[in-house]
Amino acid sequence: MNHHLPDPIKNLALLFRDLPGVGPKTALRFAYALLREPREKSENLARSLLALHSHMKVCGSCMSFAMESPCAICRDTERNQKILCVVAESRDVSTIELTGAFPGYYFVLGGLLSPLDGITPDMLHLAELNRHLSMHPEIREILLAFNSDLKGESTILYLTKELAHHKLNITTLARGLPMGADLEYADEVTLADAVSGRRTIS
Amino acid sequence: MNHHLPDPIKNLALLFRDLPGVGPKTALRFAYALLREPREKSENLARSLLALHSHMKVCGSCMSFAMESPCAICRDTERNQKILCVVAESRDVSTIELTGAFPGYYFVLGGLLSPLDGITPDMLHLAELNRHLSMHPEIREILLAFNSDLKGESTILYLTKELAHHKLNITTLARGLPMGADLEYADEVTLADAVSGRRTIS
Repeated sequence: MNHHLPDPIKNLALLFRDLPGVGPKTALRFAYALLREPREKSENLARSLLALHSHMKVCGSCMSFAMESPCAICRDTERNQKILCVVAESRDVSTIELTGAFPGYYFVLGGLLSPLDGITPDMLHLAELNRHLSMHPEIREILLAFNSDLKGESTILYLTKELAHHKLNITTLARGLPMGADLEYADEVTLADAVSGRRTIS
Repeated sequence: MNHHLPDPIKNLALLFRDLPGVGPKTALRFAYALLREPREKSENLARSLLALHSHMKVCGSCMSFAMESPCAICRDTERNQKILCVVAESRDVSTIELTGAFPGYYFVLGGLLSPLDGITPDMLHLAELNRHLSMHPEIREILLAFNSDLKGESTILYLTKELAHHKLNITTLARGLPMGADLEYADEVTLADAVSGRRTIS
């Protein structure tokens, strides 16, 4: 980092660089942007940062970040107890909730398998998932809702074997053309998925 | 923003969205990344944010953000007093300093003219620049070092007229091919600049 920068800017930019996808130029841009704004903006951000860990805990049931344990979703008795959606990260819960399309409960795996990044099965919440399934014999279906990439695919393969003894219906998200997609520009794998997963118009 | 998110995450993400170039998805990604890290990371960031405005002031001479006024560069008597580099933003000072190619002093204009964004001449440090030039009759050259875009060009045109009465040599940054550029992929304006600004090999 540029040694001509004043220390307070340099220190702040170095910390911003720890955020995902933030390089040295963006980090500096953030620091200078805050410097140009009234002091209150930086203070509000600081306060929110201090509140983050104090007010958030991990739900002991679904392993998602929440304000209470068990979390609001796990406490909701109106949901379909037969379906459990397994997601990689806590933020995926709110992404799927936003669709309003999923009626059941969630479980956060804590990541996806990626041996190259050092993410091995023992680093995921597998023991917790097995315990969760044993404690909830009413669950009949597990929806593995992961990114549709190599990590997601390997984790699906691994979990399918690993959870076989629970004798559950294991499903994954549908593959096909995204909304608004142009046939001409769709990649071959997506198009093949859309063809093999074709649906009868009812 | 997603109403299924816990408040501490939502609040933090909303504040991150005020940073330049940060949209709702990136802001959430930042918040969750900090949540996964130890609490100390968020606390360090909060401390740096609180320190930012307390430890930074605007240099009364060159209008740049600095820890003291006058700033370290303005206090440095070893520099070439005949050249003043006018930049748009405070961070441009450290960018140019990093090259080691500029021997003189700086002045921060506080922005570039952009009527569409509501940036008019009265919002720039023009009065301060005129005062600075009157107080420093030793200045013989002004280097207008702005981005090479429409805003930069209009500001150069405006300043050239506005500063004419000081009877100074007004210069701008050289235009041409960037280091490592491929002729075939250079745009026509850049290539035309490189041709008209061609240099004799000494």
